[in-house]
Amino acid sequence: MHERPVNWMDNPNAERVKRVAQLAGRSAVRNRRQQFLAEGPQSATEAIRAHLGLLTLSPAAASFWPEHHTVAEVYYTPRLASTHPEIQALIARLGRNVFVAETSDEVLQAMSDAVVHQNIIAVINLPSGGEAPSPEAQLVAGLIRVQDPGNAGTIIRAADAAGADCVLATTQTVDVYNPKTVRSTAGSLFHLPVYTNVDLAQFIQDYQGQVLAADGYGDVMLDQADRSLLTEPTAWLFGNEARGLNSRELKLATARVAVPLYGLAESLNVATAATICLYSSAMAQRNEP
Amino acid sequence: MHERPVNWMDNPNAERVKRVAQLAGRSAVRNRRQQFLAEGPQSATEAIRAHLGLLTLSPAAASFWPEHHTVAEVYYTPRLASTHPEIQALIARLGRNVFVAETSDEVLQAMSDAVVHQNIIAVINLPSGGEAPSPEAQLVAGLIRVQDPGNAGTIIRAADAAGADCVLATTQTVDVYNPKTVRSTAGSLFHLPVYTNVDLAQFIQDYQGQVLAADGYGDVMLDQADRSLLTEPTAWLFGNEARGLNSRELKLATARVAVPLYGLAESLNVATAATICLYSSAMAQRNEP
Repeated sequence: MHERPVNWMDNPNAERVKRVAQLAGRSAVRNRRQQFLAEGPQSATEAIRAHLGLLTLSPAAASFWPEHHTVAEVYYTPRLASTHPEIQALIARLGRNVFVAETSDEVLQAMSDAVVHQNIIAVINLPSGGEAPSPEAQLVAGLIRVQDPGNAGTIIRAADAAGADCVLATTQTVDVYNPKTVRSTAGSLFHLPVYTNVDLAQFIQDYQGQVLAADGYGDVMLDQADRSLLTEPTAWLFGNEARGLNSRELKLATARVAVPLYGLAESLNVATAATICLYSSAMAQRNEP
Repeated sequence: MHERPVNWMDNPNAERVKRVAQLAGRSAVRNRRQQFLAEGPQSATEAIRAHLGLLTLSPAAASFWPEHHTVAEVYYTPRLASTHPEIQALIARLGRNVFVAETSDEVLQAMSDAVVHQNIIAVINLPSGGEAPSPEAQLVAGLIRVQDPGNAGTIIRAADAAGADCVLATTQTVDVYNPKTVRSTAGSLFHLPVYTNVDLAQFIQDYQGQVLAADGYGDVMLDQADRSLLTEPTAWLFGNEARGLNSRELKLATARVAVPLYGLAESLNVATAATICLYSSAMAQRNEP
C-alpha cells in the first residue's frame, strides 16, 4: 500500500517549509543565504513595491542605493484575497523568476515567526555590493551596538519618517533582518538603504558632514544648540541601551548632544531619544530660511 | 500524622500570593481593590521614593497632585540585597503600616506578571480624590482610546521626560495600571499625576490653554506652525492606534497638527508621534525668549 503523497503546500514538515522557517531563526542562516523574511501585509507589500520599482525614493536615497532588495519567494493563504485584495494585484505583477504559491494555514504558520501568522510571508534577497553609506548624505541614523530588535526597528522607521538618506549599523548591532526588527520597521526597511557591518571609524573619516553623538551626559543640550548644529548635514550615533556609546565612539563625534529631561525621568529609551534627535535635525534642515 | 505547615513565604499557592498575582490580571480586580503592582527594581524604587516623599516634583506637578500613590506591600527575594542594595535601604525606611516580606523565588514568580521575575514586587494604593486635571496646566498629554499597553506607557514616560504637568486618559483607553504599561513607563507613572476616566469634553471646557489634536491628516504641519502654537499652554490629544481621533474629538480641538513625514513612511506609531509633539512644545515653551 502506498501512502497518498502530500503536496508541500499542505505539509508543514516539507523541506521547503523548513527552509523558509529557518530564515526566522539565527542570523548565521540569513547571512549564509543572504535572505530574510518579510512577514505580514505591510512588510510584504513594501518589499514587493520595492522589487517592482513602485516606490518613489527621494533623489538622495535613489542615488545612494544602486541596488534594492528583491523578492525571491511569496507564500500566502487563501484568506489574503479577501483581507488584502490589493496585495494580490501586486503579486500578480511579479515576474516568473519569483516563486509564488498559495499554502494552507498550517504551512504558513510553520513558516512564521509570529504567534499568529498574518496570511503572507515573502522571502527577500539582500542587495549585494555598493555597501557603504554615502559621504554626502544629509541625514544619517547610526545604530551603534543597539541590541533590542524593537528599538532597532523603531529607529529605522523614525529615520524613514524623518527623511534620512540612510541608516548604518555597526558589527555588534542586533541583526536588522531578524523578524522582530523587520516587523517593527513597518515596511520602512524597504524605503531607505540600511548598511550593516559598517566600520564606524572609516565612515566618519569619509563623511563630509558633522557627527553628533546622542549622549545623555552630553555637554550640548538639544534645545540650547546653535541652529547651525541642526541644519548642517549630520550623522547621528545612537548607542547601546545599557551602556550608551563608549569613549572611543564619543571621541569620533563632532559633539555630544543630550536630549533635555525636563521632568523626573532619569533617561529616555534609545529609540525615543533617536526619534527626537532625527526629527530635530530634519525639521531644522527642511525649514532653513 | 500531620503535614509540616508551609509558611506562605515559601508557598506559591498561599492566599496572600494569589491575591497579589490577581492584581496583574483583569483591570476589574485593580479597580475594585484600588491597587496595582509595581514590578522590578526601577518601578518599585520610584514607587517607594514617591511614598517617602523623596521625589522633587515640579512646583506645578506638586500643586496639581494633592495626594500621591502610597505603597501597601513590598515583597522581595534574598537576591535583591546583592543586586540592588540601595532599594533595601529605601525599604528599611518604610513605616509599620507597609507590609514588607522576603519571599522565595517561587513565590515571587507566582506573584509576577513577567516571564522572569525581577526580585521585587510592590503593591501600590491608587491615590483617591482630587481626580481632575488642572485647567492651568502648561503641558498635558491626553491618551484618547490608546489601546496598546506599551504605547500608553511610552507616552507617559515621554510626558514625564518632557516635563508635562500631567497625563489624562479617557474611559476607553487601556488601563494604565496594567503591568505592561507600568513596566514601560520605567517609573514615570510615579512622577506625575495620571488622571483616568477623564470626561474629555468637560476637561476641554475647563482648560485654559489650547487643545492640539495630533492627527496625521491635520492641516497644520508641526514644522510650519507659528511659534506661538508651540509656546502656549497646551493639551495634546493622542488617539487610537488604528483609527486615530474621531470627528467629535477632533472638533473639540483648537487645531489639528500633523507630524511631517519626509520619507516614505506612511505613518508614525502613536507613541513616536506623541514624543515628537510633546518635545516640540516643551522645548519651545522652555526656551521662550
